[in-house]
Amino acid sequence: MRKLRLDLEYEGTCYHGWQLQSNAITIQQVAEEALHRILGETCRLVGAGRTDAGVHAFGQVAHAFTTRSLDGESLRRALNSLLPEDIVVLAVREVPESFHARKSALKKRYEYWILNDPMPSALHHRFCWHLRMPLNTGRMAGAARYLLGEHDFSSFQASGCESADHPVREICALEIETFHERFIRVAVEAHSFLRHMVRNIVGTLVEVGLGRIPEESVQRILEARDRRKAGRTAPAKGLFLQWVCYEGEGSGGSSSERSLFARSRKDIRTPPS
Amino acid sequence: MRKLRLDLEYEGTCYHGWQLQSNAITIQQVAEEALHRILGETCRLVGAGRTDAGVHAFGQVAHAFTTRSLDGESLRRALNSLLPEDIVVLAVREVPESFHARKSALKKRYEYWILNDPMPSALHHRFCWHLRMPLNTGRMAGAARYLLGEHDFSSFQASGCESADHPVREICALEIETFHERFIRVAVEAHSFLRHMVRNIVGTLVEVGLGRIPEESVQRILEARDRRKAGRTAPAKGLFLQWVCYEGEGSGGSSSERSLFARSRKDIRTPPS
Repeated sequence: MRKLRLDLEYEGTCYHGWQLQSNAITIQQVAEEALHRILGETCRLVGAGRTDAGVHAFGQVAHAFTTRSLDGESLRRALNSLLPEDIVVLAVREVPESFHARKSALKKRYEYWILNDPMPSALHHRFCWHLRMPLNTGRMAGAARYLLGEHDFSSFQASGCESADHPVREICALEIETFHERFIRVAVEAHSFLRHMVRNIVGTLVEVGLGRIPEESVQRILEARDRRKAGRTAPAKGLFLQWVCYEGEGSGGSSSERSLFARSRKDIRTPPS
Repeated sequence: MRKLRLDLEYEGTCYHGWQLQSNAITIQQVAEEALHRILGETCRLVGAGRTDAGVHAFGQVAHAFTTRSLDGESLRRALNSLLPEDIVVLAVREVPESFHARKSALKKRYEYWILNDPMPSALHHRFCWHLRMPLNTGRMAGAARYLLGEHDFSSFQASGCESADHPVREICALEIETFHERFIRVAVEAHSFLRHMVRNIVGTLVEVGLGRIPEESVQRILEARDRRKAGRTAPAKGLFLQWVCYEGEGSGGSSSERSLFARSRKDIRTPPS
Protein backbone atom coordinates (compact mmCIF):
# COMPACT_ATOMS: atom_id res chain seq x y z
CA MET A 1 0.00 0.00 0.00
CA ARG A 2 1.44 3.39 -1.02
CA LYS A 3 0.35 6.76 0.22
CA LEU A 4 0.15 9.53 -2.36
CA ARG A 5 0.03 13.28 -1.97
CA LEU A 6 -1.84 15.27 -4.63
CA ASP A 7 -1.56 19.04 -5.06
CA LEU A 8 -4.53 20.53 -6.86
CA GLU A 9 -5.61 23.82 -8.41
CA TYR A 10 -9.28 24.39 -9.14
CA GLU A 11 -11.92 26.94 -9.96
CA GLY A 12 -14.77 26.25 -7.56
CA THR A 13 -17.53 28.05 -9.51
CA CYS A 14 -19.22 24.92 -10.83
CA TYR A 15 -18.83 22.70 -7.76
CA HIS A 16 -20.50 22.33 -4.39
CA GLY A 17 -17.18 22.63 -2.64
CA TRP A 18 -14.41 20.12 -2.06
CA GLN A 19 -16.07 17.63 0.26
CA LEU A 20 -18.08 14.65 -1.01
CA GLN A 21 -21.85 15.14 -0.91
CA SER A 22 -24.63 12.72 -1.65
CA ASN A 23 -26.66 15.02 -3.90
CA ALA A 24 -24.26 17.49 -5.52
CA ILE A 25 -21.07 17.43 -7.57
CA THR A 26 -17.92 18.20 -5.61
CA ILE A 27 -14.26 18.44 -6.49
CA GLN A 28 -13.38 15.48 -4.31
CA GLN A 29 -15.92 13.34 -6.15
CA VAL A 30 -14.68 14.31 -9.60
CA ALA A 31 -11.06 13.71 -8.59
CA GLU A 32 -11.89 10.35 -6.96
CA GLU A 33 -13.76 9.23 -10.07
CA ALA A 34 -10.76 10.09 -12.22
CA LEU A 35 -8.47 8.15 -9.85
CA HIS A 36 -10.82 5.20 -10.03
CA ARG A 37 -10.83 5.18 -13.82
CA ILE A 38 -7.05 5.23 -13.97
CA LEU A 39 -6.16 2.96 -11.07
CA GLY A 40 -9.14 0.60 -11.24
CA GLU A 41 -9.63 0.85 -7.50
CA THR A 42 -11.51 3.13 -5.14
CA CYS A 43 -9.29 5.81 -3.63
CA ARG A 44 -10.67 7.99 -0.89
CA LEU A 45 -9.11 11.48 -0.95
CA VAL A 46 -8.55 13.38 2.27
CA GLY A 47 -8.16 17.11 1.67
CA ALA A 48 -6.25 19.64 3.76
CA GLY A 49 -9.08 22.18 3.64
CA ARG A 50 -12.79 21.73 3.03
CA THR A 51 -13.37 24.57 0.62
CA ASP A 52 -17.04 25.57 0.37
CA ALA A 53 -19.15 25.82 -2.78
CA GLY A 54 -17.70 28.48 -5.07
CA VAL A 55 -14.35 28.70 -3.27
CA HIS A 56 -11.24 28.24 -5.44
CA ALA A 57 -7.82 26.75 -4.75
CA PHE A 58 -4.34 27.38 -6.06
CA GLY A 59 -2.87 24.82 -3.71
CA GLN A 60 -5.25 22.30 -2.19
CA VAL A 61 -3.42 19.21 -0.88
CA ALA A 62 -4.97 15.77 -0.51
CA HIS A 63 -3.74 12.27 0.27
CA ALA A 64 -4.95 8.85 -0.81
CA PHE A 65 -3.87 5.21 -0.55
CA THR A 66 -3.31 2.98 -3.55
CA THR A 67 -2.12 -0.57 -4.15
CA ARG A 68 -0.97 0.36 -7.67
CA SER A 69 2.62 1.11 -8.58
CA LEU A 70 2.02 3.79 -11.23
CA ASP A 71 4.58 6.58 -10.76
CA GLY A 72 3.41 10.01 -9.63
CA GLU A 73 4.20 11.92 -12.82
CA SER A 74 2.37 9.40 -15.03
CA LEU A 75 -0.59 9.50 -12.70
CA ARG A 76 -0.59 13.31 -12.76
CA ARG A 77 -0.67 13.37 -16.56
CA ALA A 78 -3.37 10.71 -16.74
CA LEU A 79 -5.50 12.58 -14.21
CA ASN A 80 -5.19 15.89 -16.06
CA SER A 81 -6.18 14.23 -19.32
CA LEU A 82 -9.42 13.00 -17.68
CA LEU A 83 -10.28 15.92 -15.41
CA PRO A 84 -12.36 18.89 -16.60
CA GLU A 85 -10.43 22.08 -17.36
CA ASP A 86 -11.38 23.68 -14.04
CA ILE A 87 -9.52 21.05 -11.98
CA VAL A 88 -5.76 20.55 -12.46
CA VAL A 89 -3.45 18.21 -10.59
CA LEU A 90 -0.17 20.09 -10.11
CA ALA A 91 1.83 17.26 -8.56
CA VAL A 92 1.53 13.68 -7.37
CA ARG A 93 4.18 12.06 -5.19
CA GLU A 94 4.62 9.29 -2.70
CA VAL A 95 4.68 10.29 0.95
CA PRO A 96 5.40 8.40 4.17
CA GLU A 97 2.43 6.69 5.79
CA SER A 98 2.63 9.21 8.63
CA PHE A 99 1.66 12.05 6.23
CA HIS A 100 -1.90 13.32 6.60
CA ALA A 101 -3.07 16.15 4.32
CA ARG A 102 -5.04 17.88 7.07
CA LYS A 103 -3.45 16.75 10.32
CA SER A 104 0.16 17.17 9.18
CA ALA A 105 -0.45 20.71 7.88
CA LEU A 106 1.56 23.30 9.83
CA LYS A 107 0.01 26.34 8.21
CA LYS A 108 -2.52 27.29 5.57
CA ARG A 109 -2.95 30.49 3.63
CA TYR A 110 -6.25 31.76 2.28
CA GLU A 111 -6.50 34.81 0.05
CA TYR A 112 -9.66 36.81 -0.45
CA TRP A 113 -10.08 39.15 -3.44
CA ILE A 114 -12.28 42.23 -3.53
CA LEU A 115 -12.92 44.31 -6.63
CA ASN A 116 -13.35 47.80 -5.19
CA ASP A 117 -14.56 49.89 -8.09
CA PRO A 118 -17.75 51.70 -9.07
CA MET A 119 -17.86 49.47 -12.15
CA PRO A 120 -18.43 45.71 -12.04
CA SER A 121 -16.13 43.49 -14.10
CA ALA A 122 -17.44 41.02 -16.64
CA LEU A 123 -14.09 39.26 -16.74
CA HIS A 124 -13.39 38.90 -13.02
CA HIS A 125 -16.86 38.28 -11.62
CA ARG A 126 -16.13 34.65 -10.72
CA PHE A 127 -13.11 35.54 -8.61
CA CYS A 128 -13.93 38.68 -6.63
CA TRP A 129 -16.47 40.25 -4.33
CA HIS A 130 -17.51 43.43 -6.10
CA LEU A 131 -17.92 46.43 -3.79
CA ARG A 132 -18.75 49.80 -5.31
CA MET A 133 -18.17 52.05 -2.28
CA PRO A 134 -14.51 52.91 -1.64
CA LEU A 135 -12.92 50.93 1.17
CA ASN A 136 -10.42 52.52 3.52
CA THR A 137 -7.71 49.87 3.57
CA GLY A 138 -5.75 51.74 6.25
CA ARG A 139 -8.66 51.28 8.65
CA MET A 140 -9.05 47.67 7.58
CA ALA A 141 -5.37 47.05 8.36
CA GLY A 142 -5.84 48.79 11.73
CA ALA A 143 -8.75 46.50 12.57
CA ALA A 144 -6.85 43.45 11.35
CA ARG A 145 -4.20 44.00 14.04
CA TYR A 146 -6.74 43.06 16.73
CA LEU A 147 -7.23 39.69 15.06
CA LEU A 148 -3.57 38.73 14.85
CA GLY A 149 -2.39 36.14 17.34
CA GLU A 150 -4.29 33.58 19.41
CA HIS A 151 -7.94 34.32 20.16
CA ASP A 152 -11.30 32.69 20.68
CA PHE A 153 -12.80 33.23 17.21
CA SER A 154 -16.37 32.22 18.10
CA SER A 155 -17.64 35.54 16.73
CA PHE A 156 -16.19 34.62 13.34
CA GLN A 157 -17.37 31.03 13.23
CA ALA A 158 -20.23 29.98 10.94
CA SER A 159 -23.46 30.47 12.86
CA GLY A 160 -25.22 27.27 13.80
CA CYS A 161 -21.90 25.47 13.60
CA GLU A 162 -20.56 25.77 17.11
CA SER A 163 -19.24 22.24 17.04
CA ALA A 164 -17.44 20.50 19.85
CA ASP A 165 -14.48 22.14 18.15
CA HIS A 166 -12.41 24.34 20.40
CA PRO A 167 -12.90 27.86 18.93
CA VAL A 168 -9.39 29.16 19.72
CA ARG A 169 -7.22 29.72 16.68
CA GLU A 170 -3.97 31.57 16.03
CA ILE A 171 -3.69 33.92 13.06
CA CYS A 172 -0.01 34.34 12.28
CA ALA A 173 -0.41 36.68 9.29
CA LEU A 174 -3.19 38.97 8.11
CA GLU A 175 -2.21 41.20 5.19
CA ILE A 176 -4.27 43.71 3.27
CA GLU A 177 -2.85 44.89 -0.04
CA THR A 178 -4.11 46.79 -3.04
CA PHE A 179 -3.29 45.66 -6.58
CA HIS A 180 -3.72 47.65 -9.76
CA GLU A 181 -5.68 50.33 -7.89
CA ARG A 182 -8.94 48.43 -7.77
CA PHE A 183 -8.24 44.98 -6.37
CA ILE A 184 -7.86 44.45 -2.62
CA ARG A 185 -6.43 41.21 -1.34
CA VAL A 186 -6.91 40.03 2.23
CA ALA A 187 -4.53 37.17 3.06
CA VAL A 188 -4.85 35.13 6.25
CA GLU A 189 -2.45 32.48 7.52
CA ALA A 190 -3.09 30.11 10.42
CA HIS A 191 -2.49 26.54 11.49
CA SER A 192 -6.19 25.87 11.12
CA PHE A 193 -9.43 27.78 10.64
CA LEU A 194 -12.99 27.62 11.91
CA ARG A 195 -15.79 27.20 9.38
CA HIS A 196 -16.36 30.44 7.38
CA MET A 197 -13.71 32.14 9.51
CA VAL A 198 -11.91 33.89 6.65
CA ARG A 199 -15.14 35.00 4.98
CA ASN A 200 -16.49 36.32 8.28
CA ILE A 201 -13.25 38.17 8.98
CA VAL A 202 -13.37 39.71 5.50
CA GLY A 203 -17.03 40.66 5.95
CA THR A 204 -16.16 42.41 9.20
CA LEU A 205 -13.06 44.16 7.81
CA VAL A 206 -15.21 45.43 4.94
CA GLU A 207 -17.64 46.99 7.45
CA VAL A 208 -14.61 48.75 8.98
CA GLY A 209 -13.35 49.79 5.53
CA LEU A 210 -16.75 51.29 4.74
CA GLY A 211 -16.66 53.23 8.03
CA ARG A 212 -19.70 51.42 9.42
CA ILE A 213 -17.86 50.14 12.46
CA PRO A 214 -14.73 51.62 14.04
CA GLU A 215 -11.43 49.72 13.99
CA GLU A 216 -11.40 49.23 17.74
CA SER A 217 -14.79 47.52 17.70
CA VAL A 218 -13.13 44.44 16.31
CA GLN A 219 -11.62 43.89 19.75
CA ARG A 220 -15.10 43.97 21.30
CA ILE A 221 -16.49 41.70 18.59
CA LEU A 222 -13.79 39.14 19.37
CA GLU A 223 -14.47 39.35 23.10
CA ALA A 224 -18.24 38.96 22.62
CA ARG A 225 -17.72 35.43 21.26
CA ASP A 226 -21.02 35.94 19.44
CA ARG A 227 -21.38 35.49 15.69
CA ARG A 228 -24.15 38.12 15.58
CA LYS A 229 -21.70 40.85 16.58
CA ALA A 230 -19.44 40.47 13.54
CA GLY A 231 -20.07 41.52 9.94
CA ARG A 232 -21.76 39.52 7.19
CA THR A 233 -20.12 36.50 5.56
CA ALA A 234 -18.23 37.56 2.44
CA PRO A 235 -19.33 35.67 -0.71
CA ALA A 236 -17.50 32.41 -1.42
CA LYS A 237 -16.37 33.34 -4.92
CA GLY A 238 -13.62 35.73 -3.73
CA LEU A 239 -11.90 33.08 -1.60
CA PHE A 240 -8.85 31.00 -2.57
CA LEU A 241 -7.03 28.30 -0.63
CA GLN A 242 -3.58 29.51 -1.56
CA TRP A 243 -1.22 26.93 -0.06
CA VAL A 244 -0.76 24.41 2.69
CA CYS A 245 2.62 24.10 4.37
CA TYR A 246 4.07 20.92 5.91
CA GLU A 247 7.16 20.16 7.98
CA GLY A 248 10.43 20.53 6.14
CA GLU A 249 8.92 22.90 3.59
CA GLY A 250 9.26 26.63 3.27
CA SER A 251 5.95 28.45 3.37
CA GLY A 252 4.33 29.12 0.04
CA GLY A 253 6.06 32.47 0.00
CA SER A 254 4.37 35.81 0.53
CA SER A 255 5.95 38.07 -2.05
CA SER A 256 3.69 40.92 -3.00
CA GLU A 257 4.37 40.20 -6.67
CA ARG A 258 2.04 37.26 -6.42
CA SER A 259 -1.35 38.11 -7.69
CA LEU A 260 -4.45 36.06 -8.27
CA PHE A 261 -4.65 36.60 -11.96
CA ALA A 262 -1.05 36.16 -12.97
CA ARG A 263 0.78 34.14 -10.40
CA SER A 264 4.12 32.79 -11.31
CA ARG A 265 3.85 29.03 -11.33
CA LYS A 266 6.97 28.68 -9.19
CA ASP A 267 5.10 30.26 -6.29
CA ILE A 268 2.32 27.74 -6.57
CA ARG A 269 4.25 24.53 -6.53
CA THR A 270 4.88 23.23 -3.09
CA PRO A 271 8.57 22.77 -2.39
CA PRO A 272 9.89 19.21 -2.71
CA SER A 273 9.51 17.26 0.51
CA MET B 1 -34.19 60.44 -32.24
CA ARG B 2 -30.95 60.22 -30.25
CA LYS B 3 -27.91 58.16 -31.09
CA LEU B 4 -26.20 56.43 -28.20
CA ARG B 5 -22.75 54.93 -27.92
CA LEU B 6 -22.32 51.96 -25.56
CA ASP B 7 -18.93 50.68 -24.37
CA LEU B 8 -19.07 47.06 -23.23
CA GLU B 9 -16.90 44.52 -21.46
CA TYR B 10 -17.81 40.84 -21.68
CA GLU B 11 -16.63 37.33 -21.16
CA GLY B 12 -17.53 35.47 -24.32
CA THR B 13 -17.37 31.92 -22.92
CA CYS B 14 -21.12 31.37 -22.71
CA TYR B 15 -22.13 33.18 -25.92
CA HIS B 16 -22.10 32.43 -29.62
CA GLY B 17 -20.25 35.64 -30.30
CA TRP B 18 -21.42 39.22 -30.56
CA GLN B 19 -23.59 39.13 -33.67
CA LEU B 20 -27.30 38.24 -33.57
CA GLN B 21 -28.07 34.67 -34.62
CA SER B 22 -31.39 32.96 -35.14
CA ASN B 23 -30.62 29.83 -33.14
CA ALA B 24 -28.03 30.71 -30.49
CA ILE B 25 -27.59 33.24 -27.70
CA THR B 26 -25.31 36.13 -28.53
CA ILE B 27 -24.11 39.17 -26.65
CA GLN B 28 -25.88 41.54 -29.02
CA GLN B 29 -29.17 39.73 -28.39
CA VAL B 30 -28.84 39.82 -24.60
CA ALA B 31 -27.89 43.50 -24.67
CA GLU B 32 -30.74 44.38 -27.06
CA GLU B 33 -33.24 42.54 -24.85
CA ALA B 34 -32.05 44.52 -21.82
CA LEU B 35 -32.38 47.77 -23.79
CA HIS B 36 -35.89 46.78 -24.84
CA ARG B 37 -36.94 46.07 -21.26
CA ILE B 38 -35.67 49.44 -20.06
CA LEU B 39 -36.63 51.67 -22.97
CA GLY B 40 -39.77 49.86 -24.06
CA GLU B 41 -38.70 50.03 -27.69
CA THR B 42 -36.63 47.89 -30.00
CA CYS B 43 -33.04 49.13 -30.33
CA ARG B 44 -30.79 47.54 -32.88
CA LEU B 45 -27.14 47.58 -31.74
CA VAL B 46 -24.35 47.96 -34.28
CA GLY B 47 -21.03 46.74 -32.90
CA ALA B 48 -17.53 47.87 -33.87
CA GLY B 49 -16.22 44.30 -34.08
CA ARG B 50 -18.04 41.02 -34.61
CA THR B 51 -16.32 38.93 -31.96
CA ASP B 52 -16.72 35.18 -32.56
CA ALA B 53 -18.06 32.59 -30.13
CA GLY B 54 -15.82 32.43 -27.06
CA VAL B 55 -14.01 35.71 -27.81
CA HIS B 56 -13.98 38.28 -24.99
CA ALA B 57 -13.98 42.07 -24.96
CA PHE B 58 -12.61 44.71 -22.65
CA GLY B 59 -13.77 47.47 -24.95
CA GLN B 60 -16.44 46.61 -27.49
CA VAL B 61 -18.25 49.70 -28.79
CA ALA B 62 -21.78 49.72 -30.21
CA HIS B 63 -24.29 52.34 -31.26
CA ALA B 64 -28.09 52.38 -31.20
CA PHE B 65 -30.93 54.82 -31.83
CA THR B 66 -33.59 55.62 -29.27
CA THR B 67 -36.56 57.97 -29.03
CA ARG B 68 -36.31 57.99 -25.21
CA SER B 69 -34.69 60.76 -23.22
CA LEU B 70 -33.20 58.67 -20.38
CA ASP B 71 -29.71 59.99 -19.63
CA GLY B 72 -26.68 57.82 -20.37
CA GLU B 73 -25.59 57.17 -16.79
CA SER B 74 -29.08 56.10 -15.69
CA LEU B 75 -29.34 53.83 -18.70
CA ARG B 76 -25.91 52.32 -17.93
CA ARG B 77 -26.94 51.52 -14.36
CA ALA B 78 -30.28 50.09 -15.42
CA LEU B 79 -28.60 47.91 -18.06
CA ASN B 80 -26.03 46.56 -15.61
CA SER B 81 -28.75 45.68 -13.12
CA LEU B 82 -30.49 43.57 -15.79
CA LEU B 83 -27.52 42.08 -17.62
CA PRO B 84 -25.87 38.84 -16.51
CA GLU B 85 -22.55 39.19 -14.68
CA ASP B 86 -20.51 38.33 -17.76
CA ILE B 87 -21.70 41.41 -19.68
CA VAL B 88 -21.03 44.89 -18.29
CA VAL B 89 -21.84 48.25 -19.86
CA LEU B 90 -18.92 50.55 -19.05
CA ALA B 91 -20.36 53.75 -20.48
CA VAL B 92 -23.38 55.11 -22.35
CA ARG B 93 -23.34 58.53 -23.94
CA GLU B 94 -25.02 60.47 -26.67
CA VAL B 95 -23.09 60.82 -29.93
CA PRO B 96 -23.66 62.82 -33.11
CA GLU B 97 -25.75 61.15 -35.78
CA SER B 98 -22.62 60.85 -37.91
CA PHE B 99 -21.04 58.42 -35.42
CA HIS B 100 -20.99 54.78 -36.53
CA ALA B 101 -19.46 52.20 -34.16
CA ARG B 102 -17.80 50.28 -36.98
CA LYS B 103 -17.40 52.75 -39.82
CA SER B 104 -16.13 55.62 -37.66
CA ALA B 105 -13.50 53.44 -35.95
CA LEU B 106 -9.97 54.60 -36.75
CA LYS B 107 -8.17 51.74 -35.10
CA LYS B 108 -8.90 48.58 -33.12
CA ARG B 109 -6.68 46.57 -30.82
CA TYR B 110 -7.02 42.86 -30.21
CA GLU B 111 -4.98 41.01 -27.62
CA TYR B 112 -4.35 37.30 -27.66
CA TRP B 113 -3.21 35.44 -24.52
CA ILE B 114 -1.20 32.24 -24.48
CA LEU B 115 -0.37 30.27 -21.34
CA ASN B 116 3.02 28.78 -22.17
CA ASP B 117 3.71 26.34 -19.38
CA PRO B 118 3.99 22.57 -19.00
CA MET B 119 1.10 22.76 -16.52
CA PRO B 120 -2.45 23.75 -17.49
CA SER B 121 -4.25 26.30 -15.33
CA ALA B 122 -7.61 25.60 -13.75
CA LEU B 123 -8.11 29.30 -13.06
CA HIS B 124 -7.18 30.75 -16.45
CA HIS B 125 -8.50 28.14 -18.83
CA ARG B 126 -11.29 30.38 -20.14
CA PHE B 127 -8.90 33.15 -21.15
CA CYS B 128 -5.81 31.55 -22.66
CA TRP B 129 -4.60 29.11 -25.24
CA HIS B 130 -2.57 26.60 -23.27
CA LEU B 131 0.64 25.48 -25.00
CA ARG B 132 2.98 23.14 -23.17
CA MET B 133 6.05 23.35 -25.45
CA PRO B 134 8.21 26.43 -24.89
CA LEU B 135 7.73 29.16 -27.48
CA ASN B 136 10.65 31.23 -28.70
CA THR B 137 9.18 34.72 -28.48
CA GLY B 138 12.25 36.26 -30.12
CA ARG B 139 11.52 34.28 -33.28
CA MET B 140 7.85 35.13 -33.04
CA ALA B 141 8.73 38.83 -32.89
CA GLY B 142 11.06 38.36 -35.86
CA ALA B 143 8.27 36.79 -37.89
CA ALA B 144 5.82 39.47 -36.79
CA ARG B 145 7.93 42.14 -38.47
CA TYR B 146 6.98 40.73 -41.89
CA LEU B 147 3.32 41.28 -41.08
CA LEU B 148 3.62 44.91 -40.06
CA GLY B 149 2.35 47.46 -42.55
CA GLU B 150 0.00 47.13 -45.49
CA HIS B 151 -0.37 43.69 -47.08
CA ASP B 152 -2.81 41.38 -48.78
CA PHE B 153 -3.77 39.17 -45.82
CA SER B 154 -5.64 36.51 -47.85
CA SER B 155 -3.45 33.82 -46.29
CA PHE B 156 -4.71 34.86 -42.87
CA GLN B 157 -8.38 35.17 -43.75
CA ALA B 158 -10.91 32.57 -42.57
CA SER B 159 -11.01 29.81 -45.18
CA GLY B 160 -14.22 29.65 -47.15
CA CYS B 161 -14.80 33.30 -46.40
CA GLU B 162 -13.13 35.04 -49.29
CA SER B 163 -15.87 37.60 -49.53
CA ALA B 164 -16.07 40.42 -51.99
CA ASP B 165 -14.09 42.13 -49.24
CA HIS B 166 -10.80 43.60 -50.35
CA PRO B 167 -8.19 41.50 -48.47
CA VAL B 168 -5.63 44.31 -48.01
CA ARG B 169 -5.22 45.49 -44.42
CA GLU B 170 -2.65 47.57 -42.59
CA ILE B 171 -1.26 46.35 -39.28
CA CYS B 172 0.14 49.35 -37.44
CA ALA B 173 1.29 47.52 -34.30
CA LEU B 174 2.09 43.89 -33.53
CA GLU B 175 3.64 43.37 -30.09
CA ILE B 176 4.69 40.17 -28.39
CA GLU B 177 5.31 40.35 -24.67
CA THR B 178 5.78 37.91 -21.82
CA PHE B 179 4.05 38.42 -18.47
CA HIS B 180 4.86 36.66 -15.21
CA GLU B 181 7.13 34.20 -17.03
CA ARG B 182 4.36 32.03 -18.39
CA PHE B 183 1.84 34.27 -20.17
CA ILE B 184 2.53 35.52 -23.69
CA ARG B 185 0.44 38.32 -25.10
CA VAL B 186 0.20 39.03 -28.83
CA ALA B 187 -1.36 42.43 -29.48
CA VAL B 188 -2.42 43.54 -32.95
CA GLU B 189 -3.66 46.98 -33.99
CA ALA B 190 -5.21 47.86 -37.33
CA HIS B 191 -7.93 50.01 -38.83
CA SER B 192 -9.87 46.87 -39.64
CA PHE B 193 -9.38 43.12 -39.73
CA LEU B 194 -10.36 40.20 -41.93
CA ARG B 195 -12.37 37.37 -40.40
CA HIS B 196 -10.18 35.21 -38.07
CA MET B 197 -7.18 37.34 -39.05
CA VAL B 198 -5.78 37.74 -35.52
CA ARG B 199 -6.32 34.10 -34.62
CA ASN B 200 -4.68 32.97 -37.87
CA ILE B 201 -1.74 35.31 -37.29
CA VAL B 202 -1.34 33.95 -33.75
CA GLY B 203 -1.58 30.35 -35.02
CA THR B 204 1.18 31.08 -37.52
CA LEU B 205 3.40 32.92 -35.04
CA VAL B 206 3.05 29.94 -32.68
CA GLU B 207 4.34 27.64 -35.43
CA VAL B 208 7.35 29.95 -35.72
CA GLY B 209 7.75 30.04 -31.93
CA LEU B 210 7.77 26.23 -31.84
CA GLY B 211 10.45 26.17 -34.56
CA ARG B 212 8.18 24.40 -37.05
CA ILE B 213 8.47 27.15 -39.63
CA PRO B 214 11.29 29.68 -39.98
CA GLU B 215 10.66 33.37 -39.37
CA GLU B 216 11.26 34.31 -42.98
CA SER B 217 8.59 31.92 -44.21
CA VAL B 218 5.98 34.34 -43.00
CA GLN B 219 6.94 36.56 -45.93
CA ARG B 220 6.26 33.69 -48.35
CA ILE B 221 3.01 32.81 -46.58
CA LEU B 222 1.83 36.39 -47.04
CA GLU B 223 2.81 36.41 -50.72
CA ALA B 224 1.08 33.06 -51.38
CA ARG B 225 -2.32 34.64 -50.61
CA ASP B 226 -3.44 31.14 -49.70
CA ARG B 227 -5.02 30.27 -46.34
CA ARG B 228 -3.60 26.75 -46.53
CA LYS B 229 -0.04 28.05 -46.28
CA ALA B 230 -0.46 29.67 -42.87
CA GLY B 231 -0.72 28.02 -39.44
CA ARG B 232 -3.83 26.77 -37.70
CA THR B 233 -6.46 29.12 -36.28
CA ALA B 234 -5.74 29.83 -32.61
CA PRO B 235 -8.67 28.99 -30.29
CA ALA B 236 -11.20 31.77 -29.72
CA LYS B 237 -10.95 31.77 -25.94
CA GLY B 238 -7.55 33.53 -25.87
CA LEU B 239 -8.78 36.52 -27.89
CA PHE B 240 -9.91 39.90 -26.52
CA LEU B 241 -11.21 42.96 -28.34
CA GLN B 242 -9.22 45.42 -26.28
CA TRP B 243 -10.33 48.81 -27.54
CA VAL B 244 -11.69 50.74 -30.46
CA CYS B 245 -10.38 54.21 -31.16
CA TYR B 246 -12.34 57.08 -32.79
CA GLU B 247 -11.43 60.54 -34.03
CA GLY B 248 -10.51 62.98 -31.31
CA GLU B 249 -9.56 60.21 -28.88
CA GLY B 250 -6.17 58.99 -27.81
CA SER B 251 -5.60 55.32 -28.46
CA GLY B 252 -6.45 52.97 -25.62
CA GLY B 253 -2.86 53.23 -24.47
CA SER B 254 -0.24 50.52 -24.79
CA SER B 255 1.55 50.56 -21.48
CA SER B 256 3.09 47.21 -20.70
CA GLU B 257 1.66 47.39 -17.18
CA ARG B 258 -1.70 46.50 -18.61
CA SER B 259 -2.41 42.88 -18.24
CA LEU B 260 -5.46 40.79 -18.96
CA PHE B 261 -6.07 39.72 -15.44
CA ALA B 262 -5.53 42.94 -13.55
CA ARG B 263 -6.06 45.87 -15.85
CA SER B 264 -6.41 49.23 -14.32
CA ARG B 265 -9.89 50.48 -15.09
CA LYS B 266 -8.57 53.83 -16.26
CA ASP B 267 -6.92 52.08 -19.19
CA ILE B 268 -10.18 50.51 -20.21
CA ARG B 269 -12.41 53.51 -20.32
CA THR B 270 -12.41 55.21 -23.63
CA PRO B 271 -11.36 58.83 -23.37
CA PRO B 272 -14.18 61.38 -23.42
CA SER B 273 -15.13 62.40 -26.92
